[in-house]
Amino acid sequence: MHATHCPCCGIDVHAHVVPENFPRYIGAKVPADWPSMAPAGQACHRHVMISGKVYRTVSDACWSTTRRLQDLPGMGLALQVVSPMPELLSYWMAAADAQQLLRYTNDCMAAMVQESGGQLAALGAVPLQDVELAIAELEYVVKTLGFAGVEIGSNINGVPVGARQLDPFFEACEALGAAVFVHAIRPAGMERLVGPAPLQQVLGYPSDVGLAAASAITSNLMLRRPRLRIAFSHGGGTLASLLPRLQQGWDVFPALKESVQASPTEQARQLFYDTLVFDTPTLRHLVGSFGASQLMVGTDYPFNFHDRTPVQRIEAAGFDGDTAAALIHRNAERFLGIRTKETTP
Amino acid sequence: MHATHCPCCGIDVHAHVVPENFPRYIGAKVPADWPSMAPAGQACHRHVMISGKVYRTVSDACWSTTRRLQDLPGMGLALQVVSPMPELLSYWMAAADAQQLLRYTNDCMAAMVQESGGQLAALGAVPLQDVELAIAELEYVVKTLGFAGVEIGSNINGVPVGARQLDPFFEACEALGAAVFVHAIRPAGMERLVGPAPLQQVLGYPSDVGLAAASAITSNLMLRRPRLRIAFSHGGGTLASLLPRLQQGWDVFPALKESVQASPTEQARQLFYDTLVFDTPTLRHLVGSFGASQLMVGTDYPFNFHDRTPVQRIEAAGFDGDTAAALIHRNAERFLGIRTKETTP
Repeated sequence: MHATHCPCCGIDVHAHVVPENFPRYIGAKVPADWPSMAPAGQACHRHVMISGKVYRTVSDACWSTTRRLQDLPGMGLALQVVSPMPELLSYWMAAADAQQLLRYTNDCMAAMVQESGGQLAALGAVPLQDVELAIAELEYVVKTLGFAGVEIGSNINGVPVGARQLDPFFEACEALGAAVFVHAIRPAGMERLVGPAPLQQVLGYPSDVGLAAASAITSNLMLRRPRLRIAFSHGGGTLASLLPRLQQGWDVFPALKESVQASPTEQARQLFYDTLVFDTPTLRHLVGSFGASQLMVGTDYPFNFHDRTPVQRIEAAGFDGDTAAALIHRNAERFLGIRTKETTP
Repeated sequence: MHATHCPCCGIDVHAHVVPENFPRYIGAKVPADWPSMAPAGQACHRHVMISGKVYRTVSDACWSTTRRLQDLPGMGLALQVVSPMPELLSYWMAAADAQQLLRYTNDCMAAMVQESGGQLAALGAVPLQDVELAIAELEYVVKTLGFAGVEIGSNINGVPVGARQLDPFFEACEALGAAVFVHAIRPAGMERLVGPAPLQQVLGYPSDVGLAAASAITSNLMLRRPRLRIAFSHGGGTLASLLPRLQQGWDVFPALKESVQASPTEQARQLFYDTLVFDTPTLRHLVGSFGASQLMVGTDYPFNFHDRTPVQRIEAAGFDGDTAAALIHRNAERFLGIRTKETTP
């Protein structure tokens, strides 16, 4: 059934890095939210401190290449594509300050890729609060560091992914052949949550990603930038629930038909998504909604809330071998613009 | 295959009313957003004016019982449960002003039910910005008007459905056996939309309903009020996309496990939802996610964006006869606390 892929050739496009240390800020006045590391209880853990508080306690799997590579085979992965922990994207800092932090983080990731013997690749970070500076950093990560592309937030200080002001950035990504991975960040709808802090990640994140993907559709991003390769985290979040209604609305409301220049359903099938939904019927529903050619393994490794059996989950979902191989590695190769050893004859 | 239901016995729990006229405000100073009617181009249409602007142009199907009853058989409906156009809920007015408007609307709906010869039922409106006043109006619509229950917003001026401050209201609903239909209103996430005004209904509404349903789960509403019958519009909005991640989050985060006192998946199967998703695979996915016992026909009649073939859609979805009958009328009977002629031997 799974003859078209080897037992351990998965590509994970959604995994995060936190550097072991943060650099000292170079400048007159340290920004209040400049991150630092503090020791945690256990030797292999550290507290990421932001604005004087523990933002998250993370393990050495965040920065140690050796430690990370040990975990890949158990998850069925041949290649993991790392990107910064989203909170590090620092859209809320002055752009030059963010760029200082992100340059350091990008260089850390480049060192990890270098050490990994081909088992890691990277998506860099850019200060997208300043489109011009973001394009400069994009060129650095792609041309100098050889990264496959970048990770960006589902919104940039509240600006949706589909907003026209971001278009020069996507134009540059298209021109450079850089893959764009859209990850949830500082989500809308927080005021609707009733419960403890993790609900931000649990409910806020997928809601914001769903609206981000919808904004790409309603703004005709793939019609404007047809060669762009862009993916949305967490299975596209709530997009699967929104899409049939968006399609129907497009059929019903003249204002929508006029402004959205191709069927939302068709446009959704030109975006990529990760498989990080923790549920087989939902994964099958996504394949039906978005197409077997558009989904790729995503794990959120190494955070607590990560999928420990991403490839096994796809193998157990009852897809035909071709679909399974597409989800496990082929779609990711297309998204990243790479060929892995396993697929070259 | 569909032996367990007759050809035209559907119950629609999601349909709206706009009164033919709005009353004059009784009081010193008319609230700025007190609605009024203005003539539209065609004789059978009127403009609902709010704050000096056309809020929506509506047809006589909104207020004419005769006109409405003519449309029911074509949609496969034996019974339609009407509730006010959500914008009329007026949570943003002073509570006493809202109550004045809602009392009029409730009385209009009572007259329609009276005229309908058993083909209409109603869910009333209550000024939930003042829980005490809302309970008083709830008692009026249930005890005096004989309504099945009430329609409420997915948020009350931003307060989520699961917020503890609403608990006395749900306690009263439970005590009175009043069904609660939660409809999207003034949604969160508007700042994430890129495109024309209808995107509020198209994308904002289901996002807000999804978060409302999630808040019912994370606040243990059905554990606190086990006899409450509560339904969420638009197929529960984005809840189907959020639920597997909420379930996984509950398994992973101790803070969530502690505060959410039963599995989110189990709790979701105690809520009701309408079928208003305009897509067969999505409808099947909802039945799998929420249970065949929890979904009921919803149409959004008579607005532009309504489902014209709600029962036909269920019949064509390939469910077994029992499931189809449950979706077409039986679940609605349970939700509303009624028995229709068709099911009594």
